[in-house]
Amino acid sequence: MKRKINVGMLGTKFMGKAHSHALKDVSIFFDLDVEPVMKTLCGSGDHSDLGDLAEKYGWEKWTSDWREVINDPEIDAVAILTPGHLHKEMAIAAAERGKHIICEKPLGNSLAETKEMLEAVQINKVIHMTNFNYRKVPAVTLAKKLVDEGRLGEIIHFKAVYQQDWVVDSDWVWRFDKKQAGSGSMSDKGSHIIDLARFLVGEMTEIVADSKIFFGSKPVAGTLERKPVTTDDTCTFLTRFANGAMGLFMTSRVSTGHKNFLSFEITGTKGSVIFNLERLNELAVFLKDEERSVQGFRTVLATEPSHEYVRNMWPTGHTIGWEHTFIFQYYEFLKGISENKNPSPNFLDGVKAQEIIDAALKSVEEKRWIKI
Amino acid sequence: MKRKINVGMLGTKFMGKAHSHALKDVSIFFDLDVEPVMKTLCGSGDHSDLGDLAEKYGWEKWTSDWREVINDPEIDAVAILTPGHLHKEMAIAAAERGKHIICEKPLGNSLAETKEMLEAVQINKVIHMTNFNYRKVPAVTLAKKLVDEGRLGEIIHFKAVYQQDWVVDSDWVWRFDKKQAGSGSMSDKGSHIIDLARFLVGEMTEIVADSKIFFGSKPVAGTLERKPVTTDDTCTFLTRFANGAMGLFMTSRVSTGHKNFLSFEITGTKGSVIFNLERLNELAVFLKDEERSVQGFRTVLATEPSHEYVRNMWPTGHTIGWEHTFIFQYYEFLKGISENKNPSPNFLDGVKAQEIIDAALKSVEEKRWIKI
Amino acid sequence: MKRKINVGMLGTKFMGKAHSHALKDVSIFFDLDVEPVMKTLCGSGDHSDLGDLAEKYGWEKWTSDWREVINDPEIDAVAILTPGHLHKEMAIAAAERGKHIICEKPLGNSLAETKEMLEAVQINKVIHMTNFNYRKVPAVTLAKKLVDEGRLGEIIHFKAVYQQDWVVDSDWVWRFDKKQAGSGSMSDKGSHIIDLARFLVGEMTEIVADSKIFFGSKPVAGTLERKPVTTDDTCTFLTRFANGAMGLFMTSRVSTGHKNFLSFEITGTKGSVIFNLERLNELAVFLKDEERSVQGFRTVLATEPSHEYVRNMWPTGHTIGWEHTFIFQYYEFLKGISENKNPSPNFLDGVKAQEIIDAALKSVEEKRWIKI
Amino acid sequence: MKRKINVGMLGTKFMGKAHSHALKDVSIFFDLDVEPVMKTLCGSGDHSDLGDLAEKYGWEKWTSDWREVINDPEIDAVAILTPGHLHKEMAIAAAERGKHIICEKPLGNSLAETKEMLEAVQINKVIHMTNFNYRKVPAVTLAKKLVDEGRLGEIIHFKAVYQQDWVVDSDWVWRFDKKQAGSGSMSDKGSHIIDLARFLVGEMTEIVADSKIFFGSKPVAGTLERKPVTTDDTCTFLTRFANGAMGLFMTSRVSTGHKNFLSFEITGTKGSVIFNLERLNELAVFLKDEERSVQGFRTVLATEPSHEYVRNMWPTGHTIGWEHTFIFQYYEFLKGISENKNPSPNFLDGVKAQEIIDAALKSVEEKRWIKI
Repeated sequence: MKRKINVGMLGTKFMGKAHSHALKDVSIFFDLDVEPVMKTLCGSGDHSDLGDLAEKYGWEKWTSDWREVINDPEIDAVAILTPGHLHKEMAIAAAERGKHIICEKPLGNSLAETKEMLEAVQINKVIHMTNFNYRKVPAVTLAKKLVDEGRLGEIIHFKAVYQQDWVVDSDWVWRFDKKQAGSGSMSDKGSHIIDLARFLVGEMTEIVADSKIFFGSKPVAGTLERKPVTTDDTCTFLTRFANGAMGLFMTSRVSTGHKNFLSFEITGTKGSVIFNLERLNELAVFLKDEERSVQGFRTVLATEPSHEYVRNMWPTGHTIGWEHTFIFQYYEFLKGISENKNPSPNFLDGVKAQEIIDAALKSVEEKRWIKI
Repeated sequence: MKRKINVGMLGTKFMGKAHSHALKDVSIFFDLDVEPVMKTLCGSGDHSDLGDLAEKYGWEKWTSDWREVINDPEIDAVAILTPGHLHKEMAIAAAERGKHIICEKPLGNSLAETKEMLEAVQINKVIHMTNFNYRKVPAVTLAKKLVDEGRLGEIIHFKAVYQQDWVVDSDWVWRFDKKQAGSGSMSDKGSHIIDLARFLVGEMTEIVADSKIFFGSKPVAGTLERKPVTTDDTCTFLTRFANGAMGLFMTSRVSTGHKNFLSFEITGTKGSVIFNLERLNELAVFLKDEERSVQGFRTVLATEPSHEYVRNMWPTGHTIGWEHTFIFQYYEFLKGISENKNPSPNFLDGVKAQEIIDAALKSVEEKRWIKI
Repeated sequence: MKRKINVGMLGTKFMGKAHSHALKDVSIFFDLDVEPVMKTLCGSGDHSDLGDLAEKYGWEKWTSDWREVINDPEIDAVAILTPGHLHKEMAIAAAERGKHIICEKPLGNSLAETKEMLEAVQINKVIHMTNFNYRKVPAVTLAKKLVDEGRLGEIIHFKAVYQQDWVVDSDWVWRFDKKQAGSGSMSDKGSHIIDLARFLVGEMTEIVADSKIFFGSKPVAGTLERKPVTTDDTCTFLTRFANGAMGLFMTSRVSTGHKNFLSFEITGTKGSVIFNLERLNELAVFLKDEERSVQGFRTVLATEPSHEYVRNMWPTGHTIGWEHTFIFQYYEFLKGISENKNPSPNFLDGVKAQEIIDAALKSVEEKRWIKI
Repeated sequence: MKRKINVGMLGTKFMGKAHSHALKDVSIFFDLDVEPVMKTLCGSGDHSDLGDLAEKYGWEKWTSDWREVINDPEIDAVAILTPGHLHKEMAIAAAERGKHIICEKPLGNSLAETKEMLEAVQINKVIHMTNFNYRKVPAVTLAKKLVDEGRLGEIIHFKAVYQQDWVVDSDWVWRFDKKQAGSGSMSDKGSHIIDLARFLVGEMTEIVADSKIFFGSKPVAGTLERKPVTTDDTCTFLTRFANGAMGLFMTSRVSTGHKNFLSFEITGTKGSVIFNLERLNELAVFLKDEERSVQGFRTVLATEPSHEYVRNMWPTGHTIGWEHTFIFQYYEFLKGISENKNPSPNFLDGVKAQEIIDAALKSVEEKRWIKI
């Protein structure tokens, strides 16, 4: 009999669905020494249909009081999927009660918050993970492998954008409120590409950033009212990496035409790769050590058994979808619990990403380069 | 309380996993009046790990005797995922015991077989479905919608290919044996694009086909032996449709470089669309009724709530994977059972596709155009 | 002093401009032992602005009587760019007067015509060329090189389409008249892809074809009249090649959305290439003899000095346009004259292509496979 | 009789060929009131084959003394194509003798130089042009048209990169010497994208830039020696535009895999466009005012008669090459002379681009935002 891991989940909306799905599916694809049990789903108090939702997603119980989950001795692990300003309190409470934690990104709304969270999980020796799920896209792991094996040579540039356009026509949502969200595209979208930069190229040493709010207020749905927007629509920034590479970044939620365009390019002295989340099964790969007349960026379909996680999915040529990255995260989280070994990316990665976000926001405010 | 639908599944390999996954996930995404229960998994006798597999996939019971499943009065519906030559016997037995049936494609290995199967499900009034899952790709349903709304005008061409390359380096498998598989790329790949042609353009009236075995024998894994290949590697065919359109087709399992390249183009007098399964979240759409200087094929990311099935998945820009098509099939299958109304595509579609496959094989043999 | 080659040109419209441009430019890019002189331009009698056109394009003289050009003892070579039904008489007359000939495709309107033309140039020992200019696209020459070097292995499939859509909205033009044009998309577009098939894969042995006129009549510009269309809008055909490969073809002038989409794919047992005329500086290349995890179709930008003709153009990365293929043809034509050695593709290639076109038309008429 | 414009050209290498070609071809495509005459070609003193080259390109005379050209009273216009540090002296001398001038980019090696040049052409009332040829790509003129017509709404982002990789494996060339070249990728590549930014979005107000030399020395061809590199390999910069838009830029000559990848994206509140020089016949266009279910970036093939300059080239679907942009520049230059009206882009544009380049270099040096 496998050891059971009872999970509680704080958050029910978009992320609640994605995480529930991942938990339900992880055992189909991966052989684990532990067995996740979908114990308790926790939604906010205004959730009239919480019971239906819990049943639909496969949870045994539900509650609208997150402390009930945290205090439940049966619960071994919690997933924190609430707006950013709630992360700290929930994570620290969970850690103090010995719960393992997987937390959505950005880990907190400031460097100070995330450091407290990291301290709590370290002191309480629980397994912790930050849900930078794009590290787990097989095409991204292939990029990482090529970098690590030196096949791209010395890395000299990293260029990344994360462009969406939903804000152009959106009503007011909590993400437009600095108090709840910390910042706008910078933390929401930027945390992902900052994490990928760290994962793929290494630590950054300096940053200069610009940001702007193009849509200063937004209509409140179902009313004639408008509320102010206090978080950035777009951010641009330049960085330097510890290994000497240069970085170029853009995050935007007003990039008309782009739905979920997270794209990066890693340039090395021997080769380059280009990734685009909207075609997440592909990696464009250029390798210079080939006969020049047939060189070119290859469209590698990252669906081979040799590509990470893929051997657990489907045969060659059968593509995966966006939410599979959550399954891969849960696989790593549960394996971490099973082996009592912290998986990657964890709270330290959440702290490091926040350090850069904070530096970026400071750079915007003070209009100058900031050391990290 | 929802009515429970107890399902038995015959087949455990690639398709067994895909169907199990779909059954497990369907309730997360769709609201159904019935509740599927994963009752019994049936694998072949040489399956030492059948129990483990059943547990992993979420089945309550398992057996290596398919008749046990068919004869189990608890079972309401069966999924038939075995090699083609076994479909007929299983389906007829299941129908006779009043089980609803979802059967893998091609429905049978000959027109005669499929007609018997159709007769059985009709006489026994069970719900039936043929798993032409690509009808359910949201981008394909968008293509269908554009055709049906007349936005492409009169349809004049349909061009489709299904190209893979796994046979080039493959060991011998059952698919190379005409007795078990009926034919080669023609039935395995061809059945899919023939079904899409019927779905998107309509019935065909005539066909002329060519086929070839390029690799006449294949090594038997783990031995020094080679076994003959008696099924086609590649098929090409021309058709005419009842509505006057012309068809052009290719199926191949030796198309070096293509992993799962099912691509079609529908040309109408007012517009055209192009689809490619390796980028299944996209549909290229050309509409002629626009200012000429900005005309062009649009890359529509079919991840909008307005795209079929998508509103049940994730927000705009979050792509789905290949196996989600199975979830959509199970949604339709279960809804069919719930409403006692046959979903599409069903056994009649399986028969119609087989009629064309048989005509193609006859055309190859007699080297002439064949009326359908 | 270089030997001067005095050229006369029969035809002034689209092709007249393209050929004039090529003649004017060829010396900038290529070092030749002969010097082309743009002597006489010949347009049809209704050409009020022939003088202006000749001056604009750089011709010394002009006339509306083609026999004057043919009979001019100063003229060394003629370019025949008139509608197809005029080629034969002009080419034979030119050959008999010892003029070297470059003739537009299709070479004639029937196999019989082209054979007479070939006989005339052979008897009179003049240099001859058929303007299948797409053989000279650098990306196509790269494809040919990969085939010849065996890097694609044994060639097993050739798939080619040539799709345009100008007929959908077009007024009546001479190309719709079978008497003037021979056939429709089959000769106009088909001759190009048939020539490429022969160039890249080899001779064909059998064909089965289908064709259709979708737009039965067309308005005569500036009138209320409509005239019948007697040439095909679309053709589809299957072939077998002498080396065992299978062929799949489509030609269409009613493919809504496609402006000049000539695309082919060569599949070999070791690799494949894909070409598309609308992106003529690129060749997609797949080579199987690579580490599987980074395999994929490469987008080779065929602008390297190692790519044929390119070293005479611009440095790496500077793309060429459609009309440069004509410059390359004239380079080969003039080199042929200089070295008294027939270039490729010549009238024999024009005959061979016509043989296949005639077989295709016969196959359509008799609705059966035709041996070539 | 048309007025003759006698042209002298200073420079014979890559640019000499491109400009000669353009001058030779311009009359084939465009109807001008003046007739350009290719009078004198001027190459450097070490040019043993200057005569051959002049003949090949179609020049009447040649010299290795540029002052001879400038002082020749027959000469009406000069093209200056020499390394950047020579531009100023040549341009001022030419202007003082009343010659019209087309000068390669960057116009000079510093803002001070370019201002002197501008003053000289203004005082002497000669027609002047800076060869920012990419403004003339038909797809770019289409982008400009969409911006000007307001079809993209308010412009909020401009993102541009110009990436090549020839420096990675290159020997030492004059472009690596700050004295001759001013700066590296910043002026060589950056001047182009800065000019496009100004052309498409408007003036910039602020900049912060970073740059780096990755390859500090380079081998001198044919020797064992290495010489230092004093010009940047890569530049990244952020800008603000006067209209409130944000800018993000990268220039690199060490971007492994990119041959001539100048790409930009203009984002507006109603639409966006994306351009890539390696596919210069295409513009990706997104327009938000459409039914959402068929929205997507369209691949517009900018080969319609309605696209600027294209009606003078070939029919729909027949692509142009890189060097045609030079033909379009000469058309504008000669029309400017004919109408005594300064074309765009002219020396003022050269000055404005240099102002931004100088600000970028200063920003790198002082590591801070610089007002423009």
